[in-house]
Amino acid sequence: MNEIRVGILGLGTIGIGAARILIEQQQLITRRLGKQVRLVAAADRILDRDFGLDLSGVRLTDDASDIVTADDIDVVIELIGGYEPARTFVVTALEHGKHVVTANKALIAKHGEELFPIADEKGLQIGFEAAVGGGIPCMKALREGLAANTILSIHGILNGTCNFILTKMENEGADYGDVLKEAQALGYAEADPTFDVEGIDTAHKLSILAAMAFGSKIKFDEVFTEGISRITAADIVAAQELGYRIKLPGTAKPHGENVSHGGCEKVEMRVHPTLVPLDSQLAQVSDSYNAVLISGDFVEHTMYFGRGAGERPTASAVIADVMDIASGFPDGIRHLAPPMGFVQSARTEVPTLPMADVECEYYLRFMVQDEPGVIASITAVLADHRISLEAVSQKERHKTQAVPVVMLTHETTEGNMQAAISRILALPNINDDLLILRKESFGA
Amino acid sequence: MNEIRVGILGLGTIGIGAARILIEQQQLITRRLGKQVRLVAAADRILDRDFGLDLSGVRLTDDASDIVTADDIDVVIELIGGYEPARTFVVTALEHGKHVVTANKALIAKHGEELFPIADEKGLQIGFEAAVGGGIPCMKALREGLAANTILSIHGILNGTCNFILTKMENEGADYGDVLKEAQALGYAEADPTFDVEGIDTAHKLSILAAMAFGSKIKFDEVFTEGISRITAADIVAAQELGYRIKLPGTAKPHGENVSHGGCEKVEMRVHPTLVPLDSQLAQVSDSYNAVLISGDFVEHTMYFGRGAGERPTASAVIADVMDIASGFPDGIRHLAPPMGFVQSARTEVPTLPMADVECEYYLRFMVQDEPGVIASITAVLADHRISLEAVSQKERHKTQAVPVVMLTHETTEGNMQAAISRILALPNINDDLLILRKESFGA
Repeated sequence: MNEIRVGILGLGTIGIGAARILIEQQQLITRRLGKQVRLVAAADRILDRDFGLDLSGVRLTDDASDIVTADDIDVVIELIGGYEPARTFVVTALEHGKHVVTANKALIAKHGEELFPIADEKGLQIGFEAAVGGGIPCMKALREGLAANTILSIHGILNGTCNFILTKMENEGADYGDVLKEAQALGYAEADPTFDVEGIDTAHKLSILAAMAFGSKIKFDEVFTEGISRITAADIVAAQELGYRIKLPGTAKPHGENVSHGGCEKVEMRVHPTLVPLDSQLAQVSDSYNAVLISGDFVEHTMYFGRGAGERPTASAVIADVMDIASGFPDGIRHLAPPMGFVQSARTEVPTLPMADVECEYYLRFMVQDEPGVIASITAVLADHRISLEAVSQKERHKTQAVPVVMLTHETTEGNMQAAISRILALPNINDDLLILRKESFGA
Repeated sequence: MNEIRVGILGLGTIGIGAARILIEQQQLITRRLGKQVRLVAAADRILDRDFGLDLSGVRLTDDASDIVTADDIDVVIELIGGYEPARTFVVTALEHGKHVVTANKALIAKHGEELFPIADEKGLQIGFEAAVGGGIPCMKALREGLAANTILSIHGILNGTCNFILTKMENEGADYGDVLKEAQALGYAEADPTFDVEGIDTAHKLSILAAMAFGSKIKFDEVFTEGISRITAADIVAAQELGYRIKLPGTAKPHGENVSHGGCEKVEMRVHPTLVPLDSQLAQVSDSYNAVLISGDFVEHTMYFGRGAGERPTASAVIADVMDIASGFPDGIRHLAPPMGFVQSARTEVPTLPMADVECEYYLRFMVQDEPGVIASITAVLADHRISLEAVSQKERHKTQAVPVVMLTHETTEGNMQAAISRILALPNINDDLLILRKESFGA
């Protein structure tokens, strides 16, 4: 029987999860594949500890270089995370003829375009299902399951930390800072939460999905990114009264005259707090769950939901990639769908749509002195910019303090909205503590 | 460049949809695969009509035999539907060395176990993603994306007609009969709706999913099946007041001491109206949408949502299968995941768990004469069978007519419940218009 030999770089939680599946589900894997997948070696900086798993028979090393160059390894699983030394190890593994599986979204988002050509040239596969949506096989769905479609939009709740915080804020009427502390205590948020709460992690994942959807190159640096740290409990209540829930989805869409025939001329990519309709599928995604709504010209709306992180769900996706590679092993790798869903030579440079040209509906929360004529002066500026209003709400009244005024607008471009905002902030009786959110309807 | 030649049997709505993708998305398909997929021929009984599509260059025939035996066809798409002659054409196509893609759940559910060995022996692929969940790539997710998992449960809303009717009944407070008529007028239900509303279609699909999940053989005939035709508007209201929505999911679970190590000893399969918690993901699936909740021992809960029927979504799944086959073409078919997720030789006969041994929580709606002691006599019988109650509700009071009494129970076996029910129906002042529904919590 064919045997596929695997080496793991990094025995953190996900590394242990991946090792656990390879050991505990061996019989299942063999029944599925008709081949054996064997964990041969694993590298970690600290080996003198209890892994909570019987790793006897597995060669342990504190030098990852051993694994990426070893003669007896067919597939390297990279679970070190971050840019370096992960990138160097992956490049070395590919150069030594090893297939690579990784859960490292930062690596793929930033260095994917260096890695894919190397793999392509050598007939090797790079699997990274675990990098986006954790255990949810959303990239397999996008790349293979929806392959007959021109993808029209992607909306993904891709960061469990942010979704956990937003859910808690809503359920408990609590403010961002308090919930963040709780999330940190529970291990749902890092000590330095910037990467998650400022939307960077979501932007990494979105940039990968967008490139896979539209056949374009990954452009993480060009994703418009705003986080959730300025949202208040009052905003969540205001949104709810208007029929919306605040989420942090990443959104990607193709633009161009001829999108339906593969003519994607520009790619829209943005991550920001967004009002989603209470009865939409994405609004139902709570706690640390992730979900991706993908729409195609034939399939219409589809959604993929599950755990976006965690040892076991993430390891599930890692080993699914290993099993895909094992299916094609040793000579059938070229018969798998290419890693980014398009043959490497057909993947093109597509410019990113400038944020100023993006069309959105807006939620604006101004803080104003409660004087006659303030709302009239704001709406006059909006009207001057041809921005029409869907709703205006001013709940509190206070003689001396600024009070919030919330407005929902119809669609306009970001550029036009920003121009209007600059003029509004120059008006009297409006302070500069302005919150701009955007709102989205999905049709599902 | 490699070329894959396709023939379609049946130019109904889905056949036209599939042809449309092959023609309109040609450029996209080639960019994805690096190969061309060409529609060579199509068969239909009536050719002298407007297909709404330019089929020039496609060989049209009214004899499907031509296509399944033709030398210039690599993949046959069977979209005739039903058992025969679809089965005969598929067998002939396989015998002539052609890969087969079909949207025909009845065919796979009933004759799959005849077809898979033929395909396996000849190194051919059978694709049937479109047979379950329409456009949703849920079988690819189950078979490949979750391949590292022991599957612990499947709950699928798999019939759009039933879900449309149940959604309408709830939204409009309307009774089953009126909504069915409306659904028929709108084309959401057939003139003879039995296949859909009695749960047979769902059972077809569930039996396929269960076998794919547990590595067992397809046993459609052994699925416990009840439809939605006895549900009233009052039941929907009563369920809602208790915190539930009534859906028609198919449910499948593995049983046995050693399930987590592939030791599935029995398979539970059932289709019946079910109370699902209002805040669960499945409860949010409305109208004609489908969704499948799949849980695995590593991935935990995942859900797949989208259009379960219709020309374009179904065609999306059909062509995704064709593209999978094209990826491996001509010599890499053995490198794709096997059609049922396990190599054919590892698929085993697993007995179906008898319905009497299935454990459920129950919704019971008795019609009783409003006499003192009636509820006491019912609950005494339940207590005697060690069935404990979660809730009891009697809203209406009427001196002469029977009034509904609704009870929610905790878990018990179907066998025990049926024994209790027989005794209860023999009590005075209870008529035999009893509705038994079951209730399910999902954890997601």
